[in-house]
Amino acid sequence: MSDRVYIFDTTLRDGEQSPGATMNLEEKVSLARQLEALGVDIIEAGFPAASQGDYEAVRAIAGAVQHVQVAALCRALEKDIDRGWEAIKGAAHPRIHTFLATSEIHMVHKLRKSREEVLAMAEAAVRHAASLTPNVEFSAEDASRSDWEFLAKVCEVVIRAGATTVNIPDTVGYAQPFEFGELIAYLLKTVPNAKDAVFSVHCHNDLGLAVANSLSAIRAGARQAEVTLCGIGERAGNASLEELVMALRTRHELYKVESGVKTEQLYPSCRRLAQIIGQPIPPYKAIVGPNAFAHESGIHQDGVLKNPLTYEIMTPESVGRKGTDMVIGKHSGSHAIKAKLAELGYPLDEQQLAVVFAAVKELADKKERVFDEDVEALVLEKVYRRRDKYRLKDMSVFSGTHGVPPHAAMVLEVLDGEAVVEERRNSSFGEGPVDALFTCIGQMVGYQPALDRFQINAVTGGTDAQATVTVRIAHGEKKSVGRGTNEDILVASAMAFLNALNRLEKMREEKEECPTL
Amino acid sequence: MSDRVYIFDTTLRDGEQSPGATMNLEEKVSLARQLEALGVDIIEAGFPAASQGDYEAVRAIAGAVQHVQVAALCRALEKDIDRGWEAIKGAAHPRIHTFLATSEIHMVHKLRKSREEVLAMAEAAVRHAASLTPNVEFSAEDASRSDWEFLAKVCEVVIRAGATTVNIPDTVGYAQPFEFGELIAYLLKTVPNAKDAVFSVHCHNDLGLAVANSLSAIRAGARQAEVTLCGIGERAGNASLEELVMALRTRHELYKVESGVKTEQLYPSCRRLAQIIGQPIPPYKAIVGPNAFAHESGIHQDGVLKNPLTYEIMTPESVGRKGTDMVIGKHSGSHAIKAKLAELGYPLDEQQLAVVFAAVKELADKKERVFDEDVEALVLEKVYRRRDKYRLKDMSVFSGTHGVPPHAAMVLEVLDGEAVVEERRNSSFGEGPVDALFTCIGQMVGYQPALDRFQINAVTGGTDAQATVTVRIAHGEKKSVGRGTNEDILVASAMAFLNALNRLEKMREEKEECPTL
Repeated sequence: MSDRVYIFDTTLRDGEQSPGATMNLEEKVSLARQLEALGVDIIEAGFPAASQGDYEAVRAIAGAVQHVQVAALCRALEKDIDRGWEAIKGAAHPRIHTFLATSEIHMVHKLRKSREEVLAMAEAAVRHAASLTPNVEFSAEDASRSDWEFLAKVCEVVIRAGATTVNIPDTVGYAQPFEFGELIAYLLKTVPNAKDAVFSVHCHNDLGLAVANSLSAIRAGARQAEVTLCGIGERAGNASLEELVMALRTRHELYKVESGVKTEQLYPSCRRLAQIIGQPIPPYKAIVGPNAFAHESGIHQDGVLKNPLTYEIMTPESVGRKGTDMVIGKHSGSHAIKAKLAELGYPLDEQQLAVVFAAVKELADKKERVFDEDVEALVLEKVYRRRDKYRLKDMSVFSGTHGVPPHAAMVLEVLDGEAVVEERRNSSFGEGPVDALFTCIGQMVGYQPALDRFQINAVTGGTDAQATVTVRIAHGEKKSVGRGTNEDILVASAMAFLNALNRLEKMREEKEECPTL
Repeated sequence: MSDRVYIFDTTLRDGEQSPGATMNLEEKVSLARQLEALGVDIIEAGFPAASQGDYEAVRAIAGAVQHVQVAALCRALEKDIDRGWEAIKGAAHPRIHTFLATSEIHMVHKLRKSREEVLAMAEAAVRHAASLTPNVEFSAEDASRSDWEFLAKVCEVVIRAGATTVNIPDTVGYAQPFEFGELIAYLLKTVPNAKDAVFSVHCHNDLGLAVANSLSAIRAGARQAEVTLCGIGERAGNASLEELVMALRTRHELYKVESGVKTEQLYPSCRRLAQIIGQPIPPYKAIVGPNAFAHESGIHQDGVLKNPLTYEIMTPESVGRKGTDMVIGKHSGSHAIKAKLAELGYPLDEQQLAVVFAAVKELADKKERVFDEDVEALVLEKVYRRRDKYRLKDMSVFSGTHGVPPHAAMVLEVLDGEAVVEERRNSSFGEGPVDALFTCIGQMVGYQPALDRFQINAVTGGTDAQATVTVRIAHGEKKSVGRGTNEDILVASAMAFLNALNRLEKMREEKEECPTL
């Protein structure tokens, strides 16, 4: 058996379809490039049949990376597979990933198909995919709750039809490590043509066991793991890429397998994701959380000083955690900033560079120290944004405890392309300063979306940090996420709300379907 | 072998000693009462020898609960054990928990003792503890990296000396589930008097495996699991109580053991912790995270509508997640509020009730809907706070984009007990409105602490939510956490900063030691 485990990252598919993790095309491409730098083997870029937006994002990712395989998820339907292939055929290494449920409960209640019908559908789908590319993956949705004998039959049939990877998902996060390992061992032993395919696992974290289940499966012979950065994904998320990779590395003597991941890129990758989706990495997140290497207790610190091995099983440097270095000062030239952006993984064109340079200089005038995170936030703010309908021109907010309620005043520009076609002004009271701002904006655009989520994440330390505000709003059936970054949390809040409104305005047709493995 | 697993909660000890989770005495007592309602078997209340504050908190908890055992952690030293016993002897069911490292690396580099010396120390410590109470637990720190034969010898000796519980910690989060289960099975088979004690495990999450390791140990015969709410704890935290308990329940046919936990209290307990430490539950946290039961994808939603079992392995109700109910309106009387507070687990006296009642009514005038979370935030704000040196009287903040930098003005009261002995006023510019506020306060108190962390958590949805702001500040060697809750995030920020300053002023002597298992 090979000692190479393939790392299949689905942050852009399973991760992206979780609440609050929606990304636009430019953000997805930026993250795909970072995943390539991280050294994953396969990027699942999306589900092209779901919507025009998904299709375009997958196609853009397929064109943006060179060394990594790009997978498109497709239901076991010819039209889905054709649409998926359209999106990825331009990739250097495309993969079609088709799926169908195999558990009784899914077949009876969701698909309403018999075992024979499911077998025939799976076979036909894989055969069609294999006529387009030799790189075909089949997933047996809800495999962990499927009848083992039937599942083995499905594996046999799809491998014969041309599947080179067979994925065994624990779709609902139900499996326990020992039984999941037994299932993989059973399949490898029972499926007669098992040696013709790589067996893969895709585990969900509903009981906190996604990484343990994946490791147990690898120990039993699985050689692909489907994972996400920070473990984001549907419900409680997927197996966390960084935990899985570091367990394999730290306990290499037990697992005896290698991955191609450059572990020094783990922390930068997770931080990039956190920046893009505007969700801070939780304090206790293993490997990449703010506390993960913090030694708080006296006995503990004493031990670490005497010998780091007393309490450390891996070094912070091995996962790419360094001190936050000052990178840019007010005297830095555009060359320094260009070099820094390249190092951070943002290859910008000259025009984009000029915009970011101006913004960095402006920030450096106001802020003593400009960190990597500040530069990244500015890039995301200034470059990776769609064209907007509304733009903030000026605002002011007053807030306090003197009996006059918080109030905001604002001038808003209405754009048509680059041109300002109208200027609106308004002032409004609110319960607090943020409420005043949002009410003020709602009155100017003519409707008041409901606010589902409001979150502030200071991207760097100190009170002169830049704050990134994330809002999720809903209006009728449509939902949208917006982000704004500024050294003033109230300006950032207004920008985030306007960004969400601009997205709402431009929102494409609702996705038809979003599958889950 | 018994089918009862004891749940040993160490949120108040291992959890509380992690960065940003510091709690004061009143907050600890409030959480201990909630843990008793949750149905855990043992509460580890703290480490009494660490500081006077820890000692007093443990003693207060010991007196505040009736049905649950209360454990005090003590190094394997007679003075530590005596101090610990002083703190808990008033409890209905006290337990002394003493510990000593047994791995070569800890014995050689940290303890600088031989195996024989460690054996003798462990035996003497347990013997002394057993002379005070029949309920004695011994922990072999770094057990998972200890020599198995030596560890078995240690277990034999401490059981003979009177330990009724023997704990096997995976102190550095190094173990993998299958080998950890094998270790427990080995000990149960090898230690000649194993049947005279309950074997326990205490797992850390550095590789994301704390729950899986604990489950594997239980499957092998361990009958106590040391866990924390939301998995908080040193570095990447401990095994999460809610994940462990729900795995045992959801897959009861595999594990065939029972815990005494009332699972409907899981979500309220975790939410209480999140409120107290001012850290929101992360979106993807299994069982209790905001996304844990959110079904986002179309295929998924379709399946759930056809039959919830297609994608749900447990119901939200089984872990105490209900829709957020409106509980208090502006017409509610003090009876309704008293009943609600009792339901939420806050048995207040008449004077405290009057304070909270006034605050709730004030809030109900400003805010359309008052939720459970709002009431809890007010209780924590108004009741569970120490006496302060500084108090906010009035403030105003101006912020905007017009070239005049953000600025704040404030009137601060200096208190001596209840009396206002001085009023200070000041105004200051800042990079943003929060910076202006904090600079303004710093100038008034005569020093400017460094800001380590600044976090805003909207405790309820919508723009009229109350916001809880958490700050962590540092001045010289001292660190402090403060929280403020208000419907205006800027007022909440000023309150949080003042709260942290007040704690800094009152800070007791630094803890001498904080152990980690």
